[in-house]
Amino acid sequence: MKNTRPADFADVRATNLSVVLHHLRANGPSSRAAIAASTGLTKATVSSLTGTLIEQRLLRETGLTGNRIGRPSTALALDGSAYAAIGLQVTADRLTALAVDFAGDQLLLWHRTFDGGTPVGSVAVTAGPGRAVSAITALAQRAATRVRQQGRQVLGLTVAVPGLVEEGGTVRLSPPLGWSDIDLRGQLAGSLRQPGLDVAVGNHAGLAAVAEIRHGGHPDLDLTYVTGAAGVEAGIIADGRPLHGSRGFTGQIGRFTLGPAGSPTLADLAGIEPLVRRALPGFDPESLADLTPAVEHVALLARSGDRTALTALHDTGCHLGQGLALLANLVNPEVIVLGDHYAALAEWLIPAATPELARNTLAPASGGTRLLASGLGLHAAALGGAVTHLERVDTGALPSPA
Amino acid sequence: MKNTRPADFADVRATNLSVVLHHLRANGPSSRAAIAASTGLTKATVSSLTGTLIEQRLLRETGLTGNRIGRPSTALALDGSAYAAIGLQVTADRLTALAVDFAGDQLLLWHRTFDGGTPVGSVAVTAGPGRAVSAITALAQRAATRVRQQGRQVLGLTVAVPGLVEEGGTVRLSPPLGWSDIDLRGQLAGSLRQPGLDVAVGNHAGLAAVAEIRHGGHPDLDLTYVTGAAGVEAGIIADGRPLHGSRGFTGQIGRFTLGPAGSPTLADLAGIEPLVRRALPGFDPESLADLTPAVEHVALLARSGDRTALTALHDTGCHLGQGLALLANLVNPEVIVLGDHYAALAEWLIPAATPELARNTLAPASGGTRLLASGLGLHAAALGGAVTHLERVDTGALPSPA
Repeated sequence: MKNTRPADFADVRATNLSVVLHHLRANGPSSRAAIAASTGLTKATVSSLTGTLIEQRLLRETGLTGNRIGRPSTALALDGSAYAAIGLQVTADRLTALAVDFAGDQLLLWHRTFDGGTPVGSVAVTAGPGRAVSAITALAQRAATRVRQQGRQVLGLTVAVPGLVEEGGTVRLSPPLGWSDIDLRGQLAGSLRQPGLDVAVGNHAGLAAVAEIRHGGHPDLDLTYVTGAAGVEAGIIADGRPLHGSRGFTGQIGRFTLGPAGSPTLADLAGIEPLVRRALPGFDPESLADLTPAVEHVALLARSGDRTALTALHDTGCHLGQGLALLANLVNPEVIVLGDHYAALAEWLIPAATPELARNTLAPASGGTRLLASGLGLHAAALGGAVTHLERVDTGALPSPA
Repeated sequence: MKNTRPADFADVRATNLSVVLHHLRANGPSSRAAIAASTGLTKATVSSLTGTLIEQRLLRETGLTGNRIGRPSTALALDGSAYAAIGLQVTADRLTALAVDFAGDQLLLWHRTFDGGTPVGSVAVTAGPGRAVSAITALAQRAATRVRQQGRQVLGLTVAVPGLVEEGGTVRLSPPLGWSDIDLRGQLAGSLRQPGLDVAVGNHAGLAAVAEIRHGGHPDLDLTYVTGAAGVEAGIIADGRPLHGSRGFTGQIGRFTLGPAGSPTLADLAGIEPLVRRALPGFDPESLADLTPAVEHVALLARSGDRTALTALHDTGCHLGQGLALLANLVNPEVIVLGDHYAALAEWLIPAATPELARNTLAPASGGTRLLASGLGLHAAALGGAVTHLERVDTGALPSPA
């Protein structure tokens, strides 16, 4: 159907560079002979490919590895030291910056409280985005400078935003931030004093899903990441790739409703903020700079057997299961990963959601979809933002010199 | 992520064969020079590729084409005569067989009434599938024999079934047919006296979507095909490829509900059979061998201004719009094609569905998703079943000799 570009020898080489990098990422240090045996490439081809990768400082030789039979041979390992990428994550209350190197080591993780977001319905909608973009730019600038001072080439920087983000990096609509039609990529690229830095903007849940694939212990799985931090959004990896859709506006399950106008949506019924309201009567989440302490408080109450908190968690879990059945029915993922605040409450949400997921999925046993809690914490989207730049190298598109 | 197979020269050649075939399918007869100019391949490469394709009877020379300047040159066109594929479509009341050749010409279209399906809840569940499989086998056998008698090589045969179909061709669950765990592909391949015939089984809506891409006037679009004939199912083309999911169980939107157990599902609210029940009070669709006359009757009443029929169509359209918003929010297709019976009622359903689609989609203007009626009639899934085999040729996987 699509993809009608002619192929040439460079494509073959890129594919095979990618095969070698993938092998080492999946299997750890390996000899050239082991790479050849496992990938089906000839030893001569592997030697040529690994030579290029060593020259580019993407691989290094790690000394001799003892084979059981025959001469010991030199093992090759992924080398992360030369290249890094940066992810920033924007929520209504907080900015997070994170950098990782090519081998997956975290180089920095910074948080900033943040008041630039102006939820839809508030008064000062216009003042918000400008201040927010300045704060994002300042943090991005500092992070990029720091990583460069460590002697690493920064391959790119991606900002994760909840809501609808167009491919060119314009935030079309972000209800949690109160933004619409903000050319975030353009403003960032124009303000950053980082010539040659590849700047991108992506959807929060979509980037978190990419992070789960690479760092969450689910390599090569079709998974869907679900976040309840800002509405309810899903990041969908389908058939091995992030589901992009025609304009990039995928995964918006929170909006779903069935019934007359004004019927509650899935986000009303299964979002984190409504959960906190139900679990902690009298507690106003809008007065908080950050939902995290409220979520921790809910967990504490649930652990102590508080009926109100347990009922709220059960109800939220049931509705969440109905919503996740949508994903199981439509997209049929192998794994649905409950992210950020959902993960912190997963021990109560998953037992309530699981039977509803099964009951509302046409396929027996939920079509094989398993429900898991994310282990990546609250900054999975920032990690995913960085990962997107490093993954490009994994496809065989080697970095050009800084 | 996935796809870590090494590449070699054969992959480059397959890709470039595919580029040439794609060019001719999109642009019609072209000279070698025009193909080279438009694809970026060298003239020598185009000559070699088209030589192979002519040898394989996939292209033919169509005589001289007048260039505006310079010597007239020979035009090449897709040649369909040597290769065909067959699609069968199974619904509870009818079998359809259809054959097309590589150029897209329809070679046969047969219908058989059919009583092998036993809806879930009926008594004789076990008797159904056996008789049904025999009827399918007999029709497939006749169609393949007929096409071969016309001197064509049959590249493959695919049976379209509503419900959940596993990749290996087992029907895991088909509520409209009352089937579960029927190894349809195995039984067919075992009974057909057609050695070497590639037999497959696929989901109805998914195959109809493939047909829409190739024959519905939407080439290279991300589209979703929605059928209401048997429950409500969606066939999703995402990022240029059918959305497969982990086990192939995608597109089951009819199951969706939000609310306490027993709440109506989308299929209850927006399916064709409930619509007929509401539009034609006192009329029992289960007594029918075929929904088509009932749907025609509803259209006739609506055209004459019948209030009951118009109200039923309006309500169904509104609920359908809410369901389609799911697709717009989650998958963000460029086009949603209303298929089969929905298409026959589209002039009433689309005006009711469109505002609900927009109201329930987070992205402004429904995220760009347009709502259209299919022009492929009631046998789009059979057509799609045939098309899947022909498309493999378009990817450069040329047929082996019969």
